[in-house]
Amino acid sequence: MDAFADDARVLAGGSEGAAALRSLTGVVFDALEAGAARRGGPLPSGGPAAVAERVRAVLGESRDGRAAGVLPEEGTGAVEALSSLVGLAAEGAADPADPLCAAHLHCPPLAVAAAADLSASVLNPSMDSWDQAPAASELEASVCRALAGLLYGGRGGVDGGPDALVTTGGTESNQLGVLLAREASGPGVRVVCGANAHHSVPRAAWLLGLPEPVRVPAPRGVLEPAGLRGALESLGARAPGAPVLVVATAGTTDTGAIDPLDGLADVVREFDVRSRSGGGGGVRLHVDAAYGGMLLFSGGLRARLSGLERADSVTLDLHKLGWQPVAAGLFAVPDGRALRPLDHRADYLNADDDTAAGLPDLLGRSLRTTRRPDVLKVAVTLRALGRAGVGALVDRTCGVASRLAALVEADPRLELFGPPALSTVLFRPVGADAEAVAAVRRRLLGEGRAVLGRAAVSREGGGAAEGAGCGGLWLKATLLNPHAGEGDLRALLGLVLDALPSSAVRDAAGPVPAASARPLSASRSGTPPPPRVPAAPVPPSAPSAAAGPANVITPVTASSSARSPRS
Amino acid sequence: MDAFADDARVLAGGSEGAAALRSLTGVVFDALEAGAARRGGPLPSGGPAAVAERVRAVLGESRDGRAAGVLPEEGTGAVEALSSLVGLAAEGAADPADPLCAAHLHCPPLAVAAAADLSASVLNPSMDSWDQAPAASELEASVCRALAGLLYGGRGGVDGGPDALVTTGGTESNQLGVLLAREASGPGVRVVCGANAHHSVPRAAWLLGLPEPVRVPAPRGVLEPAGLRGALESLGARAPGAPVLVVATAGTTDTGAIDPLDGLADVVREFDVRSRSGGGGGVRLHVDAAYGGMLLFSGGLRARLSGLERADSVTLDLHKLGWQPVAAGLFAVPDGRALRPLDHRADYLNADDDTAAGLPDLLGRSLRTTRRPDVLKVAVTLRALGRAGVGALVDRTCGVASRLAALVEADPRLELFGPPALSTVLFRPVGADAEAVAAVRRRLLGEGRAVLGRAAVSREGGGAAEGAGCGGLWLKATLLNPHAGEGDLRALLGLVLDALPSSAVRDAAGPVPAASARPLSASRSGTPPPPRVPAAPVPPSAPSAAAGPANVITPVTASSSARSPRS
Repeated sequence: MDAFADDARVLAGGSEGAAALRSLTGVVFDALEAGAARRGGPLPSGGPAAVAERVRAVLGESRDGRAAGVLPEEGTGAVEALSSLVGLAAEGAADPADPLCAAHLHCPPLAVAAAADLSASVLNPSMDSWDQAPAASELEASVCRALAGLLYGGRGGVDGGPDALVTTGGTESNQLGVLLAREASGPGVRVVCGANAHHSVPRAAWLLGLPEPVRVPAPRGVLEPAGLRGALESLGARAPGAPVLVVATAGTTDTGAIDPLDGLADVVREFDVRSRSGGGGGVRLHVDAAYGGMLLFSGGLRARLSGLERADSVTLDLHKLGWQPVAAGLFAVPDGRALRPLDHRADYLNADDDTAAGLPDLLGRSLRTTRRPDVLKVAVTLRALGRAGVGALVDRTCGVASRLAALVEADPRLELFGPPALSTVLFRPVGADAEAVAAVRRRLLGEGRAVLGRAAVSREGGGAAEGAGCGGLWLKATLLNPHAGEGDLRALLGLVLDALPSSAVRDAAGPVPAASARPLSASRSGTPPPPRVPAAPVPPSAPSAAAGPANVITPVTASSSARSPRS
Repeated sequence: MDAFADDARVLAGGSEGAAALRSLTGVVFDALEAGAARRGGPLPSGGPAAVAERVRAVLGESRDGRAAGVLPEEGTGAVEALSSLVGLAAEGAADPADPLCAAHLHCPPLAVAAAADLSASVLNPSMDSWDQAPAASELEASVCRALAGLLYGGRGGVDGGPDALVTTGGTESNQLGVLLAREASGPGVRVVCGANAHHSVPRAAWLLGLPEPVRVPAPRGVLEPAGLRGALESLGARAPGAPVLVVATAGTTDTGAIDPLDGLADVVREFDVRSRSGGGGGVRLHVDAAYGGMLLFSGGLRARLSGLERADSVTLDLHKLGWQPVAAGLFAVPDGRALRPLDHRADYLNADDDTAAGLPDLLGRSLRTTRRPDVLKVAVTLRALGRAGVGALVDRTCGVASRLAALVEADPRLELFGPPALSTVLFRPVGADAEAVAAVRRRLLGEGRAVLGRAAVSREGGGAAEGAGCGGLWLKATLLNPHAGEGDLRALLGLVLDALPSSAVRDAAGPVPAASARPLSASRSGTPPPPRVPAAPVPPSAPSAAAGPANVITPVTASSSARSPRS
C-alpha cells in the first residue's frame, strides 16, 4: 500500500492520481471479494430489516439516527472507507452475476464495460460542452450514429441521417419520445399505448403536463393492430384531428412480449395520412424497445423486430440485454433533425460566436446539463466484442431462457406461462394462487436464496392486470446472464418448489386453499424462518423431447449448499 | 496478463470477474497514463477538427462514416479496446485535475471517489427496487438523510424529518423543485426567478408545461429582495392569488454570486402569508445551491448560506464543489413527506402486498426507474474525509480563488470583475472587448494550453446579459482544484496575456480596435496556428499589499514548456 492510498485528498487525475488509484482499486477488489464471500449467495439473507441493521452497524449509526453514522466529523481515510463501505455494498448486493438473481432487467455487466466505466469516473468529462469533453463528445457522436444506423439502416453521420441521444435509460428515452411529439404537435397531443406499455409512458405524460394516455386493452399481452385501430377510431370521433402519439413496446417488462410492430406501423401510417389529409395533427409512432431492441445485434433474432425501423423514435437500453453498467440508455430517431426541439442556449456553454467559430454545440443532446460519458463503456464494449460478439451473447441469453422454459414445461409440478419471446420466463407451481406465488418470491428473497420477480398477467386477460389479487400472478425469471448453465436453472426451480408453503404442495389437480399461503415473516422481521422440511418428493414426470433429462428437479433444502449452487 | 483479460465475455461479478477486473483495470491505468502523456497539457491541441480526426483514426472510421468504425463486425478483444479507446479518451480529455483546466463547474474527482464508483459499475445495483439494491438503497437513505440534516438542521431519519433524493445534477434537481410546486399548487403555478438564475429553471418550466418564468432583473448579479418584492406585487396585480414558486440561486454559474437568501425568504414568507390569507395559492421558495451549497461543510463559510434552511427545497451538487465524478446531485426538502407527489406504482417493482410485507418502496425516490447508485462514492467520500475534511477542501478551493483574484488585481494589465463569492474569478485583459475576450479563450482552447470559461455579465448590468456582443464579456476561471498552487495561477494569467491578439495589446488607457481581435482559425480548421511571438514584455506593476510579489506575470510562449506548467 503506497502512501497515497491513505490521503483521501488525492485527485483521480494527474500523475499522483493514477498511482493512488492502482492502489485504491486493489482495496476495492479486496472489499468486493470479501463482501461477496460474507454474502455467500445471490443476495443477503434476512430481508430488509437485517440489511438495514447491518448498514447501521457498519456506519456506526444508532437506530434513531443520532450517531455520526454516514457523515462523521473526522474522516477514517480512503482505505478504511473503501474497505468498509464497498464491502458493505457487496455483502448486501443482489448480485446479477449470480444465476439465481434473475428478477429484473438488471443485468450482470461485462468486466470490460465496468473497467471502461472507471475511466469515465477518473477523467470526469462532462458532455454538455466540447471544452469539458473533447474526445468523449466526438466518440459519443460516433456511437450514437452507428447504433441509430444499425436500427434504421443506412448510415448515420450525414446530416439528416439516423442519430441517437444517450439517456439514463428507458424511462428518460420514453419521456423524450413523448416530449418530441408534444413539441411537434402541441400540448393537445394524445398518447395512445397498450395496457402492456411500461409505467414510464403514463408517467412521461404526467410529467410533461399532457392528458392521461389512452390505454388500449392488450388481452394477449401485446398491443394489436385491431385494438389500436379501434382506439384511434374512437379517439378520432371524440377529438377529430387531435394529434396522436402511439407508443408500442418491443419487450415488455412483464413477459418480454414484442408488439407486432409492422402491423402497428401500418395502422399508424394509415391514420396519419387520414389525419393530415383532413388537416389534423397526424399520428406518430414511438417504440419502447428498451429490452427487446438489442435483438438488432443478432442475425438470427433481429427479424422479430421487423417494423421497428418504421418508428419515429425508439427507446433502447444497453444496460439490459447489452451487459452495461447502468446507465446506458439511447433514444434513436431516423433523422437527427428531429432532435432540434431540444436545442437550447446558455451563453457560458454554447454562445453563438463559439458555435460559429467551430466549437460543437452539445447542449441540445440531453435534457440534463452536466452529464457523465456513459457512452465510453458502450464504445469499448462494441469494439471489444463487435456486432457479432454482442449478437452471440444475445442469442445465448435467449437460449438460456428457452432452456428454462423447457425445464418448467417438463416438470409436472410447474406451470409455464408461455414460450419466452425474449429472455423472460413466467412460471409457477401448479395451482399456486397469487398469495402463494408472492410468498414464494418473498421467502426466497428473505432467506437470501434467489431473486425472482413477479408479473401480474393472465393468459387471456390484460397485459398488466391490476395487482396480485386477481389470481394472475406468476414468478418471473428475467434471464440476463448469458453464462447461466443448466445446473443453475435446475437449482432455481428446485428452490421455488422447496419454498412453496407445504400446505400449498398438492397434487396437480386439486386447488390450494387460499388461506394456506401467507407472506413469510422473514421479509417483515428480518429473522430468517427456521429451515424447512423439504417438500415431499414428487415423482419425475414423463420425459419431454424438448427438455431431455430436465424433468427431475431436486428440491434444495435450506442448507448452505443451497446458497452456492455453483460450488 | 491473465487469460481472462482477453475474453471480452467475462462478467464483472462473481469470482472470475474480480480476477479479470484486476487485470483490465491495469490496462485502463496504463491507457490513462499513456493518453495523458500524449496530450501533454490540460486539453488536446488543434481544436475540434483535430480531435475529430484523431477519433476517426483510432476508430478506423472514414470521414464519410462508411467504414466499420465504432461498431466493427468482429471484436478486437477487451485489452485492445480498453487500450485504444480509454487512451483516446484520455488523450482527448480536458482534464479537470490540471490547474489550467478551469472553465466550468467540472471538478477533478477525488481518487477515493473514483475508486468507489468502480464498485457501482461492478455490482450494478439498480435503485428502483430493494431486491436489486438491498444495501445500496439503505445506504442511500442514510446519506440522503444526513446531508438533508446538515442543510436543514435537526436530524434526518425520522418521519417528517429532512430528506433528499439523489439526482443526475442541478438540472434535474431544479426540475424536481418546479415539479413539486406544480403538484402542490397546480399547473397555474408561476415560476419567478432572477435574471441570474440557471438556464435549467426556464427549461424545467418548459418541460413541465408551465408558462415561461418571470425573470426579475438582477443588476448586481443577484436576485434582490426589493426586486423580488416588486415582481411579486406586479404578478399579484396581474394574476391575483396565483401560486408562485420563487427560485433563488446560491452560486451562479457565471460569477458564483449568492443571492441574499435570508432577505428573499422574508419576502417569500410575507407574500405567502398574504396570498394564503386571501385564499390564494401561496408562495414557495426553491434555492438552486448546486454550486454554493457545499459551503455547508465549511465552518468558516457556511454563514454565507444563511437562509438556505428556510427554502422549501434545495438543489445541491456534490460533483461541483464536492469532488465527485458526475453524477452526484441532490434535491433536499425539510420534510420528507413533501416528496410524496413522486410516489408511483408499478406492480413488478412495488406491489402493495410486497410493500405491506416490508419490502421498501423505492420507486418514488426518482423520476428515473433503473438508477445507478451514485450515492456509493458519496458515502465513501464522506466517511473517508469526514465533514471537516470536505470542509477543508472547500476552504482551500475558495482560497485558491481569492489568490487568483489578488494576482489579477495586482497586475495592471488585467482587470478583475470583483471579489469572488465562491471559487469563480472573472477577469480580462484591460480594455479587451468581447471579441478579444472570446478570441483569447478560443485560442487557448485551440492550442491546448488552457481551458477558461466565459461569462457575459456587466458590473452594473443584468446578471445574464444577452450575449457576447454587449461588451460585458469576461474570462471565467472556475477554480475547483484545491491543490492548484500559485505557480499554476501565475501560469494561467501568463497564458491569457500571451494569447491576446497582439493588436489588442495596448496600454491600459487606450481602446482596442474592434476589428483587431478575431477568432483564431485553430478552432475552426483544426490546424494549430504557428507559434506566436510573445507579446511585448510589460513592466511589472507597482507591488500590491494583497498580492505580494504576484504582480509579475511571465508571459508564456508557445513552447512545450508552456503546456506543462508543473514540470
